[in-house]
Amino acid sequence: MTHFSSFAIVFTMNNSSFKVPVENRYLEDYEPGSVHEFGTISVKESDIIEFARRFDPQIFHTVPQAASHTMYGGLIASGWHTASLMMRLFVDHYLSGIASLGSPGVDELRWKKPVRPGDTLSLRVTVMETKRLRSKPDRGVLTSFIEILNQNHIVVMSMKAVNFLLCRQAS
Amino acid sequence: MTHFSSFAIVFTMNNSSFKVPVENRYLEDYEPGSVHEFGTISVKESDIIEFARRFDPQIFHTVPQAASHTMYGGLIASGWHTASLMMRLFVDHYLSGIASLGSPGVDELRWKKPVRPGDTLSLRVTVMETKRLRSKPDRGVLTSFIEILNQNHIVVMSMKAVNFLLCRQAS
Repeated sequence: MTHFSSFAIVFTMNNSSFKVPVENRYLEDYEPGSVHEFGTISVKESDIIEFARRFDPQIFHTVPQAASHTMYGGLIASGWHTASLMMRLFVDHYLSGIASLGSPGVDELRWKKPVRPGDTLSLRVTVMETKRLRSKPDRGVLTSFIEILNQNHIVVMSMKAVNFLLCRQAS
Repeated sequence: MTHFSSFAIVFTMNNSSFKVPVENRYLEDYEPGSVHEFGTISVKESDIIEFARRFDPQIFHTVPQAASHTMYGGLIASGWHTASLMMRLFVDHYLSGIASLGSPGVDELRWKKPVRPGDTLSLRVTVMETKRLRSKPDRGVLTSFIEILNQNHIVVMSMKAVNFLLCRQAS
């Protein structure tokens, strides 16, 4: 049972050259330079407020009326909410369900534009690099450039992510 | 009304040299080199699963039994959950309630150690730099090094954060 309210996945917008479905990908399936687009997730006002009350209770995230008097001119999503929505798309569509071993971190996380109630977000991921680990021949490192776009195709957030993945064939 | 389950703030552990309470701080109140400690938030298994089912449904975040057979040896929190819990402590104790204007992003976000059910997290923040903006004399940039520690005083996550803040006195 979950206490979270549901969020709507409006439709699935995929534009990806992966030959293997997400639940069966290994490091070899991520081709450097390839660009993949997936989506979408829509963001409701109630979701924004609910997340922010728990994790980021600043008035421009929690109180629509007060938010309208800030520099943002209205309610905007917590950046950590946007990052979490990104992760949902990333796990559903891009990151292997069988080979993912976790992540040591991300770099250059940027909140470029506000995310507002009613926005519909999609994911664009560029495979930057794959590198096998010499110390552990069954796995390697995947580096990805991640962008979240709104319904107007404007990038609202970006980051570079590192993930450890198993290889299909040990070197 | 919120659909999130409540989380327990077990006790407030403060070790901070701020002379002004969080709801009344301006850029001038953040002294470069000063180190501030605040806490705590405890992490329940049900919270980990609830967050991950919504935002990061990988089995080592959602299914305790399956997680015990992974490299982590048991359930661990999504890194985005840990980041969101960090933000709650950051907003409650460190970031000005009156002068905060939002953040353009963070750098070098690192998940150093797993966060597990029953862990109790606290926040350590080092003021790295404050810089007034020449273009807008009423505000400036605060750069902070943020660490989240568990109950054994081990750093589980760290990052560098940038925040825009109003100044008490325009330059």
